[in-house]
Amino acid sequence: MVILGVDPGLAIVGYGVIQVKGNRYKTIDYGCITTEADVLLPERLKIIYDELSSIIDKYNPRDLAMEELFFNKNVKTAINVGQARGVEILAAVNKGIDVYEYTPLQIKQSVVGYGRAEKRQVQEMVKILLNLKEIPKPDDAADALAVAICHSSCLNFKDMFKMK
Amino acid sequence: MVILGVDPGLAIVGYGVIQVKGNRYKTIDYGCITTEADVLLPERLKIIYDELSSIIDKYNPRDLAMEELFFNKNVKTAINVGQARGVEILAAVNKGIDVYEYTPLQIKQSVVGYGRAEKRQVQEMVKILLNLKEIPKPDDAADALAVAICHSSCLNFKDMFKMK
Repeated sequence: MVILGVDPGLAIVGYGVIQVKGNRYKTIDYGCITTEADVLLPERLKIIYDELSSIIDKYNPRDLAMEELFFNKNVKTAINVGQARGVEILAAVNKGIDVYEYTPLQIKQSVVGYGRAEKRQVQEMVKILLNLKEIPKPDDAADALAVAICHSSCLNFKDMFKMK
Repeated sequence: MVILGVDPGLAIVGYGVIQVKGNRYKTIDYGCITTEADVLLPERLKIIYDELSSIIDKYNPRDLAMEELFFNKNVKTAINVGQARGVEILAAVNKGIDVYEYTPLQIKQSVVGYGRAEKRQVQEMVKILLNLKEIPKPDDAADALAVAICHSSCLNFKDMFKMK
């Protein structure tokens, strides 16, 4: 089955598409959708929605997995990223795809086996598990692949992680 | 011209549609889109997007006006409302409609003539300006009509309020 991992954002949305067969992974695609700060917000949301919809059409994933948003800082930033995350979720539901979410702790636990792992360790494990020559760039794409891997290891009890 | 005002939200999205001819208003429709808390978030976002898109199709407004979001409290709430606001903006841009936003101060200033007006005063003025028999219910619909009125009074310099 094909899983689409998404690292939500407004300026950069990371995505990673993997195929899972038994306990083997195949990397299908990864990268990011970017929107420039000098473009009006409604247009930026449309770009994200359209590009993510195209990625879904192209690879036909069964599930979309996303990191839960946590902010301890700027509420203004939280609203902006929230608005972008809203259209990312909508792109999935409008294609009939279920959305799952995981905390950073769950992702690290699942990918590295250790909930307090460093970012670099997560990226190294993504590289190893997906049999890539290098750590995927940018970080947003690596994060998106990590949440896709996390979801693949939770498939047997995925209902627990369905976005509520 | 027809203006759609929206009071953004996840559980309740207020909307108000008015027609402006010179300095006269005609109320075309108002009400709210509601989503239940026991429905999964992706589905709630889809309901909001679909219903708002239908309202746009039905009344063909030229502009959408929305209140700016302010939160001083819960970041979790800010993210949730932000996600809903994102799909509300997308519904407009996907129909080729420009989106404008106003602060609560600007709305009160425009509708009541006094930036520190009470909520009740704004609602009374909405009733009077739109020649309604009663204050529109619920509050979210009245707020949506207020932001539509505010936009109508800013048409000559509306570029200042285009959502960035």
